[in-house]
Amino acid sequence: MNGAESVIRTLADAGVRVCFANPGTSEMHLVDAIDRVDGMRVVLGLFEGVVTGAADGYARMTGEPAATLLHLGPGLGNGLANLHNARKAQVPMVNLVGDHATAHQRFEAPLTADVQAFAATVSHWVEEPVLSSEVGAATARAVEAARSAPGRIATLVLPADTAWGDGGVPAVAGAGTPPAAVRGAVLDAARAALRRGGPVALLLRGPALRGEALVAAGRIAAATGARLFCDTFAPRLERGAGRVPVERMPYRAADATAALAGLQTLIVVGTQAPVAFFSYPGQPSELTPEGTEVLVLATEQEDGAAALLELASAVAPDAVPRLSPAQLPTAPADGPLTADAAMRILARRLPEGAIVSDEGLTSAYSGYAHLAGAAPHDVLFLTGGAIGDGMPLAVGAAVACPDRRVVTLEGDGSAMYTLQALWTQARERLDVVTVVFVNRAYAVLEEELAWVGGGTAGPKARSTLELGDPDIDYSSLARGLGVSAVRADTVADFDRALAEALETPGPVVLEAVVYHD
Amino acid sequence: MNGAESVIRTLADAGVRVCFANPGTSEMHLVDAIDRVDGMRVVLGLFEGVVTGAADGYARMTGEPAATLLHLGPGLGNGLANLHNARKAQVPMVNLVGDHATAHQRFEAPLTADVQAFAATVSHWVEEPVLSSEVGAATARAVEAARSAPGRIATLVLPADTAWGDGGVPAVAGAGTPPAAVRGAVLDAARAALRRGGPVALLLRGPALRGEALVAAGRIAAATGARLFCDTFAPRLERGAGRVPVERMPYRAADATAALAGLQTLIVVGTQAPVAFFSYPGQPSELTPEGTEVLVLATEQEDGAAALLELASAVAPDAVPRLSPAQLPTAPADGPLTADAAMRILARRLPEGAIVSDEGLTSAYSGYAHLAGAAPHDVLFLTGGAIGDGMPLAVGAAVACPDRRVVTLEGDGSAMYTLQALWTQARERLDVVTVVFVNRAYAVLEEELAWVGGGTAGPKARSTLELGDPDIDYSSLARGLGVSAVRADTVADFDRALAEALETPGPVVLEAVVYHD
Repeated sequence: MNGAESVIRTLADAGVRVCFANPGTSEMHLVDAIDRVDGMRVVLGLFEGVVTGAADGYARMTGEPAATLLHLGPGLGNGLANLHNARKAQVPMVNLVGDHATAHQRFEAPLTADVQAFAATVSHWVEEPVLSSEVGAATARAVEAARSAPGRIATLVLPADTAWGDGGVPAVAGAGTPPAAVRGAVLDAARAALRRGGPVALLLRGPALRGEALVAAGRIAAATGARLFCDTFAPRLERGAGRVPVERMPYRAADATAALAGLQTLIVVGTQAPVAFFSYPGQPSELTPEGTEVLVLATEQEDGAAALLELASAVAPDAVPRLSPAQLPTAPADGPLTADAAMRILARRLPEGAIVSDEGLTSAYSGYAHLAGAAPHDVLFLTGGAIGDGMPLAVGAAVACPDRRVVTLEGDGSAMYTLQALWTQARERLDVVTVVFVNRAYAVLEEELAWVGGGTAGPKARSTLELGDPDIDYSSLARGLGVSAVRADTVADFDRALAEALETPGPVVLEAVVYHD
Repeated sequence: MNGAESVIRTLADAGVRVCFANPGTSEMHLVDAIDRVDGMRVVLGLFEGVVTGAADGYARMTGEPAATLLHLGPGLGNGLANLHNARKAQVPMVNLVGDHATAHQRFEAPLTADVQAFAATVSHWVEEPVLSSEVGAATARAVEAARSAPGRIATLVLPADTAWGDGGVPAVAGAGTPPAAVRGAVLDAARAALRRGGPVALLLRGPALRGEALVAAGRIAAATGARLFCDTFAPRLERGAGRVPVERMPYRAADATAALAGLQTLIVVGTQAPVAFFSYPGQPSELTPEGTEVLVLATEQEDGAAALLELASAVAPDAVPRLSPAQLPTAPADGPLTADAAMRILARRLPEGAIVSDEGLTSAYSGYAHLAGAAPHDVLFLTGGAIGDGMPLAVGAAVACPDRRVVTLEGDGSAMYTLQALWTQARERLDVVTVVFVNRAYAVLEEELAWVGGGTAGPKARSTLELGDPDIDYSSLARGLGVSAVRADTVADFDRALAEALETPGPVVLEAVVYHD
């Protein structure tokens, strides 16, 4: 078999089930090999950011790596922003990136570039084998790297001749490095802090925000009074009625510090002590209040979930966690639509088991609280701050979980970065409802300009923050990509449209007009 | 003044007139400074690939650098593919990329990344100053680097505190390194080769494809019988009636080698001896036929234009160049539209002084010959092979040349990469007509799969090459971005629509349906 087939067989044998792809000439043998190997689905994206974001979403929901297939340095370049988000989400992923044949690389052809340099910006692991006989083993190493705790970005650069050349040998991928056990002394310190009786909080991320680990955190909270927080932009959070409630760390630095005020100890699980999203003149980067000690129970490489279970057995053996009540917010019956009203309606309509991909920025942030008592759901956040992740994440989540509804929250600025995701949603008949909050501005930047003390925006500055002139018609854009769309600017219309969209198979875009002249 | 203002003043004083921007929080002080400094226009793109491609188009038409304003590593990441194209186009450009404040960089905030590593993938020059007092001088160095021959990508990474901090000092940018003079011995060798009487060709790129340098090449051709070639994907070519005709190097390796068959000497000006775009099993990378000597008259850093003038004085003192006659192709009166017919009609309708941004791939390539005798125009090609340059280039070219019509040729695959460019065309009222050839496939890849010997495409492979299911409606997409659109699937309709579009102020999209069930 050729090298390409050995790569795809190695992936399929290792249980990599999906390849999100935007291939070019140098990847044609890999495309051909996917055709000849059973068990790997290929999903086309029309832009590489869709591909990498989808692989991220797939991994967040399954814990398993998807493969991506990308075209040389520039194709990888287009996928870097969402690989950055994926890296911050600590997910497993195996990127296959074609390169010129080894003998061709020394020439300055149009697409000649240092593919490994592109890869290194976001990858934990990069290799570029040069023989067809080596690529199978390299693929196995890539899978192992991807599956190493807590989840890693592995990028395998494949010169075209290693794909087309004969002598490919599939290899068996090992399991990757598991999370390290938390040391006993650290567990002891955490136990002591929780028993001391002073105000304590746990800041959780990764597996600690799901399943029995989250329940364990809830038991600890119930027994000790500890508060539970998650990062502002966690990769994935289980939330809603019947789930252990977790406070989301506020986005604004001062609000975060205020939220933590008075704590004796902040116990950190799978993350770091909170830092500001951006720095601002005269404001601190570290948000932990003066006088609060930080105890890192588990780093991201350590088994924070197991540590929480152990801690719960010790300090809360019989405790029953407080769970969020099924409590829906009120919503106005009608009137001009606002982001707040839309979030209230969403909370009331959200189906059980929904996955919410939240890139709604200013619009979704303020209404986040309304979903606390909605039907149980998962939330995926913009982990790396690189706008353009919301709709691709939804693609991957929907491919991973075909029986669940996905709801994407987008701003009208953020929705423009990887709009092409809608086409893949249509082609794959994915059950995704995308709510685009139309406020005709980079509203977050209008806030930010004020926050950084950038003065009052003059006409040129304003022109970089305002999205009108011309207005973007998201319904027209959606239809152009084969997705049906509804525009709503009243509460009643939005409520009706959302209800219908959630009943409709396949993708729908709801333009939520929250800007009223 | 703060650092940001010193940056913008330095740029404006150096004659940098336009900033293509997609800023974020860390660039707000730069946005604010642009507002306070006269003489710099800011043009917003809704995606970074639009921004960098527009700066490329601007530089190709003016020879001058535009500035770009990009948001940290991931924002720069989204712009890398078109920076790759710009690097291969050998244009000047100054990228301003915000970074976290210096004191914030050591924290793992969501957007923390190695911005310089992103920049290094495509930049000839990268600096990240750490003091407000330094950023003015660093900006001047960036401009000098950008203006160094033949045109360089300079990326200035600006930590937020260097922008907001006081003590900014504007600096005066020098001229950059000019092109080196071609050595006398090389000129002598070229002269001798041209006088020897055997078959000779000149392969031209850069300034050699424009103005008096191109005329000089034409005189040499007239006097010596030398043939004139340009690279398949030259940055810019003056073409049409009354211009010196230049043969475009064929895309396919075998065709290129055949085109050069029998040459005694290939004289290379501002480029390299031709190499294959991609490598294929068993096919050579170098396309110069066996037995043809290659003489590099001028590298890209050398003054090939001056060398051509000198050479023309020596070997063709009285020669009059042959110029392309004003000769329009015939076009069918009606019938189902084909790519060939569309290119014929375009040739007949093209207004004098038009700028053609050619990313039409298979559709535009085969009809390229039809424009040989059209009204004089410039052509901009996809220099780096990174799809998604055509519409952004048109933005930059139209900003650079407001009195000229721009025509963009797009495939229905390629148009999806940086579609957001249409919105900027609408906002800036740019006179751009975009022809999207709708064949519902990555047609170039269907060819490539056959070429690489990848076998007959099975169902999964085909699914990565076909764009139907769902069909993309480019008219709907254009209208969604504020651009009027017309769909034509007959020759007569296309002719009428093109004529009208070329008379209409502002952007228009023509969907040229060349796929007929």
